[in-house]
Amino acid sequence: MQIERYETGKRMSQGVTDGGFVFLAGQVAIDAPGAPVREQTTNILARITRLLEGTGSNPTRILSATIWLADISSFEEMNTVWDAWVPAGHAPARATVETRLAAPEFAVEIGIIAAIGS
Amino acid sequence: MQIERYETGKRMSQGVTDGGFVFLAGQVAIDAPGAPVREQTTNILARITRLLEGTGSNPTRILSATIWLADISSFEEMNTVWDAWVPAGHAPARATVETRLAAPEFAVEIGIIAAIGS
Amino acid sequence: MQIERYETGKRMSQGVTDGGFVFLAGQVAIDAPGAPVREQTTNILARITRLLEGTGSNPTRILSATIWLADISSFEEMNTVWDAWVPAGHAPARATVETRLAAPEFAVEIGIIAAIGS
Repeated sequence: MQIERYETGKRMSQGVTDGGFVFLAGQVAIDAPGAPVREQTTNILARITRLLEGTGSNPTRILSATIWLADISSFEEMNTVWDAWVPAGHAPARATVETRLAAPEFAVEIGIIAAIGS
Repeated sequence: MQIERYETGKRMSQGVTDGGFVFLAGQVAIDAPGAPVREQTTNILARITRLLEGTGSNPTRILSATIWLADISSFEEMNTVWDAWVPAGHAPARATVETRLAAPEFAVEIGIIAAIGS
Repeated sequence: MQIERYETGKRMSQGVTDGGFVFLAGQVAIDAPGAPVREQTTNILARITRLLEGTGSNPTRILSATIWLADISSFEEMNTVWDAWVPAGHAPARATVETRLAAPEFAVEIGIIAAIGS
């Protein structure tokens, strides 16, 4: 089985595929730093869609999502965007917890494991 | 390979299977909110057993567990229940960290990746 | 498919293999408790290399890493060691967040999912 790495640097890859699965790096709102949680979540989910499609997967094939919120009081605001984005009938297993993130301008980070295929 | 989703809603599924693996949503003590950590852990592990059995797996086939504690000082109390529950010879890889959880009445959350089979 | 467990106790295994993948327990600096983040990270990455090699994998085959820092202000210090350790062209997907760890003498914990093979 061939491991494939996408958007690779010396620190991390944004996506790695092996054995029919794709692992994404924890995604933050690179294009919306400091924006409200709703906007950051929208930006992250667009990044996730793009990364999944680039690795031969898509949002209907997400198996597991881990959501880290810098402030758990933004749980419902994040969920408003998340719930509208998840393809009907394809919701993944999910865990959401509060942790400080690597940079204070990011309020949300989402990690994904998905299946390759369409 | 067919992805199967269990107890699915618009936000998440409680279990998702693919490629011989099952991913469970982070489990909290739905039936024991606000209870002591020992009781919450007991409730969570019963839920995990039930979910695994429903997806064609069981507690002897857990590969990885992530345990989030709202207060790391409850580490040993949680472990008392955990250690008694893990089937002898089948302990998974595990990581335990402290994070605030989605609701203050929950003191423990556990995420699981397991293998399908018996 | 046969699940194999490495360095197994009643609480956890340090490594578990199944279906071409290996899951490592969250690794802390057992041999460098209380040491600076740089030294703890060095110790952890040596442990990860040893565990991966013992399960039929190696650092070029890491798919996903989760890094928990007790203090996110040590992000760059940890990265100095991490960036030098990752085999060129083989960087995994990664997420780094701040959480309190199980014991105060540990400042870093790293969880790994890798592929078996060479």
